[in-house]
Amino acid sequence: MAEKLKIIPLGGLDEIGKNITVLEYGKDMIVVDCGVGFPDEEMYGVDLVIPDFTYLVNNQRKLRGFFITHGHEDHIGSIPYCMQQVNAPIHGTAMTCGLIKLKLEEHRLADKVKLITHKPGDTVKAGCFTVEFIHVNHSIADAVAFAIHTPVGTVIFTGDFKIDPTASDGMMDLARLGQLGNEGVLALLADSTNVERQGYTPSENTVAEGLDRQFKSCDQRIIVTTFASNMHRLAAVIATAERYGRKVAVTGRSMENMLKVAQELGYLKVKQGTIVDIAATKSLPKNKVVIVSTGSQGENMSALYRMAFSTHKQVDIAAGDRIIISASAIPGNEKAVSKIINELYRKGADVVYEKSEGLHVSGHACQEELKIVHALTKPKFFIPVHGEQRHLQLHGRLAKQMGMNPKNICIGEIGVGFELSKRSCKSAAPVPAGMVLVDGTGVGDVGSVVLRDRKHLAQDGMIVVCVNLSGQDGGVISGPDIITRGFIYVKESEELMDELRQVAMEAIERCQRKRIRDWTAIKSAIKNDLSGYLYKTTKRNPMILPVIMEI
Amino acid sequence: MAEKLKIIPLGGLDEIGKNITVLEYGKDMIVVDCGVGFPDEEMYGVDLVIPDFTYLVNNQRKLRGFFITHGHEDHIGSIPYCMQQVNAPIHGTAMTCGLIKLKLEEHRLADKVKLITHKPGDTVKAGCFTVEFIHVNHSIADAVAFAIHTPVGTVIFTGDFKIDPTASDGMMDLARLGQLGNEGVLALLADSTNVERQGYTPSENTVAEGLDRQFKSCDQRIIVTTFASNMHRLAAVIATAERYGRKVAVTGRSMENMLKVAQELGYLKVKQGTIVDIAATKSLPKNKVVIVSTGSQGENMSALYRMAFSTHKQVDIAAGDRIIISASAIPGNEKAVSKIINELYRKGADVVYEKSEGLHVSGHACQEELKIVHALTKPKFFIPVHGEQRHLQLHGRLAKQMGMNPKNICIGEIGVGFELSKRSCKSAAPVPAGMVLVDGTGVGDVGSVVLRDRKHLAQDGMIVVCVNLSGQDGGVISGPDIITRGFIYVKESEELMDELRQVAMEAIERCQRKRIRDWTAIKSAIKNDLSGYLYKTTKRNPMILPVIMEI
Repeated sequence: MAEKLKIIPLGGLDEIGKNITVLEYGKDMIVVDCGVGFPDEEMYGVDLVIPDFTYLVNNQRKLRGFFITHGHEDHIGSIPYCMQQVNAPIHGTAMTCGLIKLKLEEHRLADKVKLITHKPGDTVKAGCFTVEFIHVNHSIADAVAFAIHTPVGTVIFTGDFKIDPTASDGMMDLARLGQLGNEGVLALLADSTNVERQGYTPSENTVAEGLDRQFKSCDQRIIVTTFASNMHRLAAVIATAERYGRKVAVTGRSMENMLKVAQELGYLKVKQGTIVDIAATKSLPKNKVVIVSTGSQGENMSALYRMAFSTHKQVDIAAGDRIIISASAIPGNEKAVSKIINELYRKGADVVYEKSEGLHVSGHACQEELKIVHALTKPKFFIPVHGEQRHLQLHGRLAKQMGMNPKNICIGEIGVGFELSKRSCKSAAPVPAGMVLVDGTGVGDVGSVVLRDRKHLAQDGMIVVCVNLSGQDGGVISGPDIITRGFIYVKESEELMDELRQVAMEAIERCQRKRIRDWTAIKSAIKNDLSGYLYKTTKRNPMILPVIMEI
Repeated sequence: MAEKLKIIPLGGLDEIGKNITVLEYGKDMIVVDCGVGFPDEEMYGVDLVIPDFTYLVNNQRKLRGFFITHGHEDHIGSIPYCMQQVNAPIHGTAMTCGLIKLKLEEHRLADKVKLITHKPGDTVKAGCFTVEFIHVNHSIADAVAFAIHTPVGTVIFTGDFKIDPTASDGMMDLARLGQLGNEGVLALLADSTNVERQGYTPSENTVAEGLDRQFKSCDQRIIVTTFASNMHRLAAVIATAERYGRKVAVTGRSMENMLKVAQELGYLKVKQGTIVDIAATKSLPKNKVVIVSTGSQGENMSALYRMAFSTHKQVDIAAGDRIIISASAIPGNEKAVSKIINELYRKGADVVYEKSEGLHVSGHACQEELKIVHALTKPKFFIPVHGEQRHLQLHGRLAKQMGMNPKNICIGEIGVGFELSKRSCKSAAPVPAGMVLVDGTGVGDVGSVVLRDRKHLAQDGMIVVCVNLSGQDGGVISGPDIITRGFIYVKESEELMDELRQVAMEAIERCQRKRIRDWTAIKSAIKNDLSGYLYKTTKRNPMILPVIMEI
């Protein structure tokens, strides 16, 4: 039997984020992207969600390299965690590598990992694979798609993209995609994020126009918040500020980092004297100032949050300040953003955040752009990626509407790859895959049991029942003592506390009468009696933790 | 000094929900609306948020009645809690009283409370107040505004409203508002929910058109989910079903309740045989069935949720089912709704939820409608209500743009009322007000301390350290034992558990060496040492609960 190409998603399907896909052929393996996901509201206390790297660890000797499409967290964020378990060179463009380098330094891995910078148009040999970098448009500079030439044919990964014909760094390389399409594409893996949206995503330069309108009509201080990673947006703000004779200061760590990286790489054209320190803005006339701030997602303790709640060291929001939110809230962040907007209004600021003002555009392709890429690449097989189930299904339907044979549309799931020959694409045997939770410095030590307990504790708090029993006759030596946290305001509930103590005592005495000496059984009795009593009297269900010590 | 009219919001400002406002003049007091709020994501385990009723309790002898604008939870939900503390007749329209009655029965208060039904156009005397019921359009039937005639002038409460010229129950009574405006309106309190939106809210009957398009193009089973309280929407679904020869079944408790109430009041015109039991739909051809379901907000265990996750007893989602989401997600519910949509897609259903499909309209007035009401009523003073800070501020700006004197635009806050004479409106002295949390059957026994503990427990779990010390010499008799919940997966962390035991032991021994016998001090030492150690090794901060028992 001839060797097959395996394409195995280890993340990024059935979810937004945590993008990572393995390509395997014979003795060679490469990985495209290595991102993090963010915990959902049920994952109490979890900081990050990373992919399960077991399959990579088990195949370390095959690993020929990591290829990263762009520098967003959902494509690079897991790299430090992955590099603690495996090692292989990482390939990306200048901005992407710049951001990965910062991450590796933070985790003290910079010396261990080989980071190789390429330009769009470059090709890289990695085992039997040849990976070609293709320029695309996205909400971060230096994003690329990959055309991966394999022994059974060419596979195209779009990465995150949109088609922006008026992008300041040029439209994505549709010509090359068309050429590849004419030569024959075996499989296309394409971004599904915006597949629910009709039409086209507007160009990034429509935001420049929107910003201009806001600056033109304003003789007060202007504060702009946006995603720190959107260097083009930052450039547009700076250019607009220069046009209206305003100085620009940035605030918030990630914004300061981005300014630094972008200036080092020579990606930002800024006139001498435009950028000033945030402290210097105080002495400038209000109509000569623009502050660019983090916090567009309402993040707790972000610069905008601190300004809104008067805890920012250098900037106090004043009546008349015009605050431009050049971003849209990512699902789940709406309430946090709205909380900040309310505070800004309370201080008399003028907040501009309406979609209709044209102050933000998406970085992802809508339906018509996706169709262009399908039509250009004419893939034999199509695997929708980067999306929840509905995005994958709708992207599949879009391909079908374009005339693709439904049998050649392959909707995958994490850990279940596809085996491709020149003519076929079949599901492969599952590999270990899933999510690993990061909490503090712990990786993988929080799982479903711990989360279930945290949820239980969050809902109704807990009750600890301590009692000392005699090792000789099982009699009560001291206690039971009741300690609660997160259950009820104890000082106003002394009566209930007394009742609980009595219920616990009765449970212990009942066990004694029945000559039960097995402590597990006694604990169960205490737990059951208390929980029944509590549900009856309060309709609550706190965690009950009986502690018996033998004397 | 002449008597002043006090208007005191006890809820509904700086928040969405929990609407309740007091009107007080001399020895008379009435209350407009009595709603609940819903807990935000930080209020772990809290079921409902109700207003602080202290001011009503302190003024029970003045209370002449409650006037309720409509039957949504944020306007009626607190009535049972309030009626446990005070008593006064409740006035509303038929649908409103029908829904309040269900609530009172649930809380076994139906016999205690006098519920009086009125029609739009009716006037009710309550002390020195005369309250006039005025028909408005909203997403629930029988909604009204109030014109409250007081000794110092007429005050208009719009309640929640929109202007729907093609509403099936007739456009709101703009003529009466205009007449009142001509006679002179002292103050207007108006709904601010949609003040951020330009233009007009589309008519409810545009949804009927959208539904028709979906039914026409479908030869499969149709499942519609919407807000149970929107009787007009339910009526439109039923009418469309009848037009296409489909039978209708409802599922979900609140939907079943609404169908019952609406039919009892004669508000729903349904042909004989159209409504069938959910169990009967199985034996009907797919293209003859419509199921109307709860769950439009993604609620856990709602009918739609159960269908999506295959736990509904009567309905299994099948490939081809068309599911129409005739609602938009309330902020905070986006992820829950999206989770259900993904599951429905996974089962091969066809889910229609796009705004562009015209399957839902808001129940609240947009800017142009608000302007009409301002222009008709020509109030001397304007108090924006029903909104977060940004809505109140923007509504104030809208009034200013319409030529109102900014000094007469009064933005209030909960508990701080206004004192009005015929010519002036000034802030009044604050009264007790705020939020009371309901958890299970407990009202007000969960406060900031309990919530802070729940948040702490949710983030990092807890560690209980138990030790028995000798009452004679303070020596360790048994322990320290370490029990954790929600902290770490213990079976794989035995080493850490041993270290924690050792750290606790060292803390106790240090205290002994220093001859510290104060148990509070020993507990502090254990807590500090453990928390320092844990932060260093894991960057986590679980709640630590030392328990010392004396033998």
